[in-house]
Amino acid sequence: MKASPQVLKGMRDFLPQRMILRNYVQDTVRRVFERFGFEPLQTPAVEYAETLEGKFGEEADKLIYRFEDRGERKVGLRYDLTVPLARVVSMYPELPKPFKRYQMAPVWRAERPQKGRYREFYQCDVDTVGCASMVADAEVVTIAYQALRELGFSAFRILINNRKLLQAVMNQTDVPAILGPSVWRAIDKWDKIGPAGVRAELTEAGLSDELIGRLFDLLDVRGSAEDVLATLADRLAGDALGDAGIDELRQIIRYLSLSGVAERFYQIDLHMVRGLEYYTGPIFEIVVDEPKIGSLSGGGRYDNLIGLLGSQSYPAVGISLGLERLIDVIDELGMAPKGVRSTVSDVLVTVFDQERLPDSIGVAASLRAGGLNAEVYLGVEKLATQLRYASRKSIPVVVILGPDELSRGEAVVRNMQTGRQQQVRQSALPEAIQAEINAADEPDA
Amino acid sequence: MKASPQVLKGMRDFLPQRMILRNYVQDTVRRVFERFGFEPLQTPAVEYAETLEGKFGEEADKLIYRFEDRGERKVGLRYDLTVPLARVVSMYPELPKPFKRYQMAPVWRAERPQKGRYREFYQCDVDTVGCASMVADAEVVTIAYQALRELGFSAFRILINNRKLLQAVMNQTDVPAILGPSVWRAIDKWDKIGPAGVRAELTEAGLSDELIGRLFDLLDVRGSAEDVLATLADRLAGDALGDAGIDELRQIIRYLSLSGVAERFYQIDLHMVRGLEYYTGPIFEIVVDEPKIGSLSGGGRYDNLIGLLGSQSYPAVGISLGLERLIDVIDELGMAPKGVRSTVSDVLVTVFDQERLPDSIGVAASLRAGGLNAEVYLGVEKLATQLRYASRKSIPVVVILGPDELSRGEAVVRNMQTGRQQQVRQSALPEAIQAEINAADEPDA
Repeated sequence: MKASPQVLKGMRDFLPQRMILRNYVQDTVRRVFERFGFEPLQTPAVEYAETLEGKFGEEADKLIYRFEDRGERKVGLRYDLTVPLARVVSMYPELPKPFKRYQMAPVWRAERPQKGRYREFYQCDVDTVGCASMVADAEVVTIAYQALRELGFSAFRILINNRKLLQAVMNQTDVPAILGPSVWRAIDKWDKIGPAGVRAELTEAGLSDELIGRLFDLLDVRGSAEDVLATLADRLAGDALGDAGIDELRQIIRYLSLSGVAERFYQIDLHMVRGLEYYTGPIFEIVVDEPKIGSLSGGGRYDNLIGLLGSQSYPAVGISLGLERLIDVIDELGMAPKGVRSTVSDVLVTVFDQERLPDSIGVAASLRAGGLNAEVYLGVEKLATQLRYASRKSIPVVVILGPDELSRGEAVVRNMQTGRQQQVRQSALPEAIQAEINAADEPDA
Repeated sequence: MKASPQVLKGMRDFLPQRMILRNYVQDTVRRVFERFGFEPLQTPAVEYAETLEGKFGEEADKLIYRFEDRGERKVGLRYDLTVPLARVVSMYPELPKPFKRYQMAPVWRAERPQKGRYREFYQCDVDTVGCASMVADAEVVTIAYQALRELGFSAFRILINNRKLLQAVMNQTDVPAILGPSVWRAIDKWDKIGPAGVRAELTEAGLSDELIGRLFDLLDVRGSAEDVLATLADRLAGDALGDAGIDELRQIIRYLSLSGVAERFYQIDLHMVRGLEYYTGPIFEIVVDEPKIGSLSGGGRYDNLIGLLGSQSYPAVGISLGLERLIDVIDELGMAPKGVRSTVSDVLVTVFDQERLPDSIGVAASLRAGGLNAEVYLGVEKLATQLRYASRKSIPVVVILGPDELSRGEAVVRNMQTGRQQQVRQSALPEAIQAEINAADEPDA
């Protein structure tokens, strides 16, 4: 290691304070995933390059960290969790279907990192494989909703669209099939470059003003989800894809409502296209307006992908929560509960001198047995030094064991936030410490 | 992806049933780590090759997955968690010392995989950086002890030794310094090849019979930890390293006892050497006799390593729990608590037909609100098919919602283990289901 070791650009260390927040978010998300019966799955970071390249082919080249292992096998680091899922479904046909799994794990992208984009980042994915029913689609949306709610998010919008509906709009407005992909790519930028920008891109792509007008007119249907679908049913009447897409979204909306997702949280938005090619039906994206961070979550139905990648075809739908963005928002808006502190320690037990060290070790052990996260100060130093350590680490409570207290079977409990100190019998320490912590964790009056 | 996709040899998928057990073990270990005030740390999987190679130099070559990234930087996958710790300590001098961190994360080894050895496996490490006191050494041993106890381990032995003591034994028996490493390597195989095997190796290394006799005689001191140390104090009297080593171990044993580690769990074992070169003081290893799986945990003090790898020197001590081995033992001996089931789901809610699907969705949502992990069956199929799904996934309870029950605001609760069914008012479902789960989780009468 050189004198000033570094992390690679686009890769990050998470120091304790940040990790405690990450663990809180991951634990919360995992609890929600499991509450809906999704099961954990773990796959290796390294896969055969052939497996990884199946999904994107040529494009994969710039996305994947690829290398040869010692046996000259071409391998790479996974760049998402969907490809490993497809491999698993293909390799273990005995897995009961529908297969509902979640995976929370790092993925790696070899591209040049940009602001807010990293070369190593975590994905939290739930997917249901082997179910064509819209119940599964509504379920993954409900899960994302529920996770956000339990993390304290109150202002977000779930955008819902359907690739079938988008295709019907193309058909209806006579957009030439060959222009489809570039039209979708342009529309997908609506929020970024605005209608004028999209119009310019579409013109460049070769669409006439009249065609663009008709397209914008259809995309621009607004109102409650019910209203939008009613209007579209009217205007796309007779288009089989349109009818199918509308029916799917109607089902999803019904199931969302039954699952307790309030209407104000979701809307049909025909401008939301999502980048990935492989979606075949409903697509979802969850956005926040504040802070300006873009989408927190995205997903959709991909009924053909697993068949493409593996040996057997299965309908599938999934949603992904962006852990890094969730954390950024929680951090920026100060949304973490007070109980999620910057240290795991509830209490530091100080050491008076080498002779009384055993007392401190014994008291710390009894505090742990009482359910507290307790540190004993590692070393024999001035009390001021020990208090400074507690203060720098933001440990909320310190137990001071001096000779006088020890001789009486007592201890001093110091609240590090208020500076208040009290004498407490050693047998009553866990309760006294817990009371100080609870006081500190309460919302400021 | 080819028609029959594969995982790389030495890498593993963990399917849900296995992952649930892994999560239980990881959560338990993490809880213990935090109870002692150790803080979580996360570092990237990919590091500069230069960083990784610092510790082992030449040897690293066969250990590390190395490659060039897109910017032609030489990088590699981390092969342990100690090197990233050293890098972090060096990069962030502002971290309060002592720095007590844990990291539970995969590491990668490019070597050819063998039975029980993998190319990707998890390490669970606790380390204290910046503390020379033996309190820190006793603390990491106590943590490993506590984690094993909370995982249900009742028969294991903590072997304790000290590199200073080993060196004193070498000095005392006049083993030529140059033969030190090969003598240690031979002794380390005591459990594998027995005294005769070790004797043969030492003879081959050039030690005389007389010298081997004296060496064996000293190594073979047995008895309680106190007794062993008393005997050694006598026999190594006057050797400064020996005195220091004995004093360190006496302190550790005192602190272990104060921390509630019963004496029957640990012993001084001079035969235990540990492979790594970098230990400078006390060393630890935790072994089980049944099943024959070797060590569950190992560690020790390494006061020079961080200075070698980084820009500033710090005393440090740590211990590592082998997640894979812990799980293998828990699995083989059936030690997981009954509550750790093969599925995360507590209950499956069946669907009678498309018309009654909304009722099932609503009931499942109310069960989740009642604190249960509840699945609604994804699809409309015969009841037998739905029950078979629950049975294959080992979901303990099924709620059956037929038209009769629905009309009365009731539901049938079926215990999948006993087959017992009962009619329950929908408002009383969470309690009724919980009662069935608790009955199933109780130890068999």
